[in-house]
Amino acid sequence: MSVTELAQRARIAARTLATATRAVKDDALVAMADALVTRTDEILRANGVDVAAAREAGTSESIVDRLALTPGRLAAIADGLRQMAALADPVGEVVRGSTLPNGLQLRQVRVPFGVVGIIYEARPNVTADAAGLTLKSGNAVLLRGSSSAANSNAAIVDVLREAIAKTGLPADSVQLVDPSSRETVRDLMRARGLVDVLIPRGGAGLIRSVVEDSTVPVIETGVGNCHIYVDETADLDMALSILINAKTSRPSVCNAAESLLVHSAVADTFLPRALDALRAAGVVVHGTAPVARFGEVVPATEEDFATEYLALEISVDVVDSLDAAIDHITRYGTGHSEAIVTGSLSAANEFTARVDAAAVLVNASTRFVDGGEFGFGAEIGISTQKLHARGPMGLPELTSTKYVVTGAGHVR
Amino acid sequence: MSVTELAQRARIAARTLATATRAVKDDALVAMADALVTRTDEILRANGVDVAAAREAGTSESIVDRLALTPGRLAAIADGLRQMAALADPVGEVVRGSTLPNGLQLRQVRVPFGVVGIIYEARPNVTADAAGLTLKSGNAVLLRGSSSAANSNAAIVDVLREAIAKTGLPADSVQLVDPSSRETVRDLMRARGLVDVLIPRGGAGLIRSVVEDSTVPVIETGVGNCHIYVDETADLDMALSILINAKTSRPSVCNAAESLLVHSAVADTFLPRALDALRAAGVVVHGTAPVARFGEVVPATEEDFATEYLALEISVDVVDSLDAAIDHITRYGTGHSEAIVTGSLSAANEFTARVDAAAVLVNASTRFVDGGEFGFGAEIGISTQKLHARGPMGLPELTSTKYVVTGAGHVR
Repeated sequence: MSVTELAQRARIAARTLATATRAVKDDALVAMADALVTRTDEILRANGVDVAAAREAGTSESIVDRLALTPGRLAAIADGLRQMAALADPVGEVVRGSTLPNGLQLRQVRVPFGVVGIIYEARPNVTADAAGLTLKSGNAVLLRGSSSAANSNAAIVDVLREAIAKTGLPADSVQLVDPSSRETVRDLMRARGLVDVLIPRGGAGLIRSVVEDSTVPVIETGVGNCHIYVDETADLDMALSILINAKTSRPSVCNAAESLLVHSAVADTFLPRALDALRAAGVVVHGTAPVARFGEVVPATEEDFATEYLALEISVDVVDSLDAAIDHITRYGTGHSEAIVTGSLSAANEFTARVDAAAVLVNASTRFVDGGEFGFGAEIGISTQKLHARGPMGLPELTSTKYVVTGAGHVR
Repeated sequence: MSVTELAQRARIAARTLATATRAVKDDALVAMADALVTRTDEILRANGVDVAAAREAGTSESIVDRLALTPGRLAAIADGLRQMAALADPVGEVVRGSTLPNGLQLRQVRVPFGVVGIIYEARPNVTADAAGLTLKSGNAVLLRGSSSAANSNAAIVDVLREAIAKTGLPADSVQLVDPSSRETVRDLMRARGLVDVLIPRGGAGLIRSVVEDSTVPVIETGVGNCHIYVDETADLDMALSILINAKTSRPSVCNAAESLLVHSAVADTFLPRALDALRAAGVVVHGTAPVARFGEVVPATEEDFATEYLALEISVDVVDSLDAAIDHITRYGTGHSEAIVTGSLSAANEFTARVDAAAVLVNASTRFVDGGEFGFGAEIGISTQKLHARGPMGLPELTSTKYVVTGAGHVR
């Protein structure tokens, strides 16, 4: 089926979803979770085909690992859906309301977007997560996954659609877009008027292409060139612990640290320890000349400071002031998550006020910038744009609003 | 100066504006208002050049009237700026905040976008309004007005910049983009990374072109194909009064009614009166065959129902049910403002829940959908998109947010 036809079916499903009660939507989420567990064998068989094809194509084991499902992983995905059922329904929330001087009653109410398109890469868990989050927020979804996960995604969506239909909601609430052609990505980006919002999840290249070519409104997610700035008044034990956590606890995610800036006043006490600890953790350090004075480093280029490694590598520089640190972050940061380690209240306030990012952290690891950690219960991605949503996006970020105005024959 | 250079200057000004206190911004607004009054003669001279050129080019008097300034109109514009000073500062508002289970303190705080671009047509009052609203919300602005208002806008911006600079804020908070070339519109649309958001204000053609070609995020404003649906249980006197108000009180604005739908059960009692009243008000009626039974009409085409007349014209049809009315609005509406006149609670609830628009009204004229009427104090436009802002946009809609996370050495 063409993207246009899929989108038209989604629009029809979206009308039913928009007025579905929370109880009905939660029943569907639980049914989706149950079905994923009941039909584990079928999904794993389909996943096995994708995994074998990936290995045959010489795909790296780390990517194969992201693609592979196990009974345990499927159970965790099902648990995620059950947890979504426990979250508050954003639809119908009155965001603002008042009675105007003329007696008109004004309410601004959360409503679903309608049809959400999600374009994503190899992980099949995104298929179920995104289906659950969009359904809970009353949206129909078009899922355009990776061709390398085609069989897994088809099996999962088949299971989810059957479960949804059994609870009385439209099966077309969740639809898969043909992943075998690049054309379908283009068609999604051009489906203005049929698709209300497009969320690309994946590498920088995918996101850039969607942002540049889409006429459908886009929520940009994910690229994080995140900095840890160690101020002259920092507790250096704390700084070390935050640095190692932010860099090494999960280097492949967007909230991992990619760059370290150290105030020159503490460079000689902090950098030797930091370089040792990074080396011990297997991190390749790209440092400038002032950094090289304190240990062996790969010379850092301009490009290093602009790079999101997503690996055990880090760029390091020494700065002479808080201002210089903020200037560096303004120049190279991607507006994701930026942290300062400091004992100074004024430095903390200056940093949080002046650094322009989705999240600014004081004495905490950038790894906390996450929907789950923020208590949103679930996350569709982390927005790095300023329009509509910025930072971790939970259920409310998957909605728009509508003004409901009630009068008694009011004219102007 | 090129758009890129202007945008780079704007970014620098935006850094100062982002942390400017409300007191400083309000002082600037009052200084801007005072300067517009003090330098009225100078502005009117420049405006006179534009008005003379417009007349010479054979521009219609209604457009010349929108272009023309008078001492009274300038005083009203100045009053608008003073009223903005009295509005709450959206910047710094804590939208959401909590202490997480691990003790991390989380705050989501309103911050300015940074640099806002506004592309608009002939009215020079927009120049001062937009400059005031963006300054109050901590944003630098790039104003790309119409070439027909080039002299007026240059004089106004000159006056505003001098006033702003005197209060200590950067003059580059407000800058004018060369209106003489189409290239500058294109340059604004391609200034991704330098301009944070683009707001087109004007006709459907301008808005469509910006939405389709811009890589800078856009807030779409204004096209309103608004409907009045008269339900079978409507108070027909009320319906008539709302119809005439919504259609005729100011036909050139986007919240004016463009189409009337009448339930077949009241067609024979309501339509004869409605057609008479519309005719008496000078409105041309485009009606379908069922409408023509009750009076003389121009035959309505498919295109009429899709048209935003912005004039004393209206399309009219008879529908057999509330469902049919909602289907018609779903098909032809532009998601702006849609009204039902009804005595039935269930019809009101059904209509407000199922009609997908920025504003849905019960027993009130669509003309109330306006930032001033909603109590927002000022309005930068009415968004008809679902992302970020929907409906009348006040100061909060000119901001983004930032998460500020404070820990005590927290690691994950």
